[in-house]
Amino acid sequence: MINTLYLPELREMLETHNSQGLRDFCEAIHPARAAEFMAGLTSEEAWEVLQHGDNELRVDIFSYFGKVKQLEILETQAIEQVAEMVAELPPDDRVDLLQEISPQRLELLLSLLPIEERRDFQRLSQYPEGTAGAVMTTEIAKLSELLTIREALNEIARQSEDYETIYYLYIVDDEDHLRGLVSARQLLTGMKHPETKLYEIMDTDLITVDALDHQEDVANKVAKMDLLAIPVVDNQHKMLGIITHDDVIDVLREEATEDAHRIGAVEPLDVSYLRTSLLTLTWKRGIWLAILFFFALLTAIAIQEYEDQIEKWVWLALFIPLVISSGGNSGSQSATLIITALSRGHITLSDWLRVVVRELMMGLLLGAGLATMGYCASIFFVPDHVALLNATMFVVPLTLLLVVMCGTLTGSILPLVFEKLGWDPAMMSTPFVAGIVDILGILIYFNVAIRFIG
Amino acid sequence: MINTLYLPELREMLETHNSQGLRDFCEAIHPARAAEFMAGLTSEEAWEVLQHGDNELRVDIFSYFGKVKQLEILETQAIEQVAEMVAELPPDDRVDLLQEISPQRLELLLSLLPIEERRDFQRLSQYPEGTAGAVMTTEIAKLSELLTIREALNEIARQSEDYETIYYLYIVDDEDHLRGLVSARQLLTGMKHPETKLYEIMDTDLITVDALDHQEDVANKVAKMDLLAIPVVDNQHKMLGIITHDDVIDVLREEATEDAHRIGAVEPLDVSYLRTSLLTLTWKRGIWLAILFFFALLTAIAIQEYEDQIEKWVWLALFIPLVISSGGNSGSQSATLIITALSRGHITLSDWLRVVVRELMMGLLLGAGLATMGYCASIFFVPDHVALLNATMFVVPLTLLLVVMCGTLTGSILPLVFEKLGWDPAMMSTPFVAGIVDILGILIYFNVAIRFIG
Repeated sequence: MINTLYLPELREMLETHNSQGLRDFCEAIHPARAAEFMAGLTSEEAWEVLQHGDNELRVDIFSYFGKVKQLEILETQAIEQVAEMVAELPPDDRVDLLQEISPQRLELLLSLLPIEERRDFQRLSQYPEGTAGAVMTTEIAKLSELLTIREALNEIARQSEDYETIYYLYIVDDEDHLRGLVSARQLLTGMKHPETKLYEIMDTDLITVDALDHQEDVANKVAKMDLLAIPVVDNQHKMLGIITHDDVIDVLREEATEDAHRIGAVEPLDVSYLRTSLLTLTWKRGIWLAILFFFALLTAIAIQEYEDQIEKWVWLALFIPLVISSGGNSGSQSATLIITALSRGHITLSDWLRVVVRELMMGLLLGAGLATMGYCASIFFVPDHVALLNATMFVVPLTLLLVVMCGTLTGSILPLVFEKLGWDPAMMSTPFVAGIVDILGILIYFNVAIRFIG
Repeated sequence: MINTLYLPELREMLETHNSQGLRDFCEAIHPARAAEFMAGLTSEEAWEVLQHGDNELRVDIFSYFGKVKQLEILETQAIEQVAEMVAELPPDDRVDLLQEISPQRLELLLSLLPIEERRDFQRLSQYPEGTAGAVMTTEIAKLSELLTIREALNEIARQSEDYETIYYLYIVDDEDHLRGLVSARQLLTGMKHPETKLYEIMDTDLITVDALDHQEDVANKVAKMDLLAIPVVDNQHKMLGIITHDDVIDVLREEATEDAHRIGAVEPLDVSYLRTSLLTLTWKRGIWLAILFFFALLTAIAIQEYEDQIEKWVWLALFIPLVISSGGNSGSQSATLIITALSRGHITLSDWLRVVVRELMMGLLLGAGLATMGYCASIFFVPDHVALLNATMFVVPLTLLLVVMCGTLTGSILPLVFEKLGWDPAMMSTPFVAGIVDILGILIYFNVAIRFIG
């Protein structure tokens, strides 16, 4: 998806050192578009183009580059200029990037950063990946409650460039304890009474998150409350940072893709599909295929136990895929429903009994449906000297009913158990559900067969 | 997840008609929290509580209620009061709700709405579900480019309550053609020069969407550009509405859950898991189980063709689940990766050749891995009078290699084909991939067996 529209012109301007043209390019169009047009350039060329915008624009356009190009620039381009730009990056993005460059380069870069940015990096990089602390930004508009609306407006006007958002203003005391929130909207509508103090209009019933909360929980909170940003506090309610709506969107998409990958039995990728190397992909898929292979081997061992039966009634073999896939599919349906409901907060662990009862009922209904279809199928596949009401005709239907119930039960209980144990239910459930249900399916099938025909 | 903390108090206040207490409850806490505390009340009780806040608060709290309760209130409570509140709802939420109430009630309600809100509803409800037009809101701050910063600030201060966001101000001409964008941040930092005209500072390189664009594409655009809101225009670039960051979050979560459900072979649910009736769930799962059942029957027919071989070499039956699951799993991995990459915009149709070649390579690597494991398994399961290098020992490994390659190919090509045809790749791919790969797997397996042993 490389936009080649401007590529020849950009390259020509670079060759002819057309500074004016390159500056115009940087300044005239939206930074996101500029980055898009530069996607076809090498990281060296891209960095050279960026030198023609001012530092603010440079940061803006750079932040829309793909991560691979960003890292290449940080690793290879002249360290002083790179450090100058890194100092201006939003703190959360800075941490994300710096954590992926080589240790030597990182040390060099840090030594060139202003002391405040360096400390900020050290503080932020302590939070484990996936926590609120690791996503938050520290460039927040913090004000004293004793300011008037007029003073607050002047303050923002003066400093707005330093803040990631000026639409939520946080009111803190001398020790940075969070006291309240005033929105830019409140300030603007309050301009008629410019001498009003902030404490008179501030909202004090605040929704906050802890720095160690999981990013997915944070994102769910922001989504539920329709917030622009959410403050991150420590256990003494001291203000550490904020997480803004655009970070929340990134978190939600990342988590949703991870969930989908796990449901599809792929270890989540760190970068996009085409950027992931073949070997990494092989590993991330191979590990699950190997686990599932192992389960299938157990199924083979289970079938081996019944080789005599298969030899006697070969038609039993025909239904092995049907039995296995019916159990596996109903199980993975249940697992998918429970996993997504858990991750969206539609159910919690305390609902477990309701969920299990529901899934049992579902298993009964779906199993009965498949059993009916299984009976009809038996008419065609079971050797034709068997009468319609002979016990043999009921082997497949009864198996299907039991297997589907077994699938919905396993598919609903396993994710709940994983959630209870503090493991990611999406991470392990679906393959395990398939594995367990496959083996149980074979055992049910041949036991029913032995009872009914044997 | 019903919060029962305030329930007894609320009920007591209702019984004793404690207006002051109920007003305090509505006013003192965040509307989202108030709604949470009221989750245990009946819709009648909840509505009665809301009567104690002013209309603005009523709308705020109401908008955090669950959809079931919202609809119950609209359907059953006194129509005049309901209409008064409906008139104040954000236009996009209003359309969402009104489209689900009974036609008679809708007619009554519409007749009680102010003419402007009624027209607005009629206009918005024309857009098909899932389009930008159906998600957008029409309460936008539109200004003329000839205003000065001071005039613009006054204008917002005066009218801010009418707009969903005042942080992006849209500049339009007399006929509502979109000309530019000024952010509240620009206005605030520009206060030092209050006589500057808006056209001097407005941003004219705007990112817009068409009213008929799919909501998922819109959400992806907003996410990519880190926007607070995106304007919706018609084909003459007339401004129709905006879609704000909170709507984008809702769209992204909705789409991600739908994708996950489809990957798990469940028709996406309209409401949350516990609120979906058993019958609806049965239908949404049963339809896919039935389709997959049909595929499994085709597999049975395929196996039937080879009954003679199974009778001769019963051990072949042991590996049927292994062959089928290896193909199915590698296929669903590929499908999952391609579907998520497509929906996040990481690949497009033009990448098809690269994707297919990658998946073929993956198939080779993964298939070779599974084949090695399959050879080891053969040592245990193939009857022991066969020598280690006898052709029979290679039936399972070769089958696995071919089946996995067949899985990765089908799993990557089908979603691309569905995308090309304009169908949702997530909607149909995974079950189809499983079905096709299962049958091909059986055909490959027995053909390899016949060549090598027969």
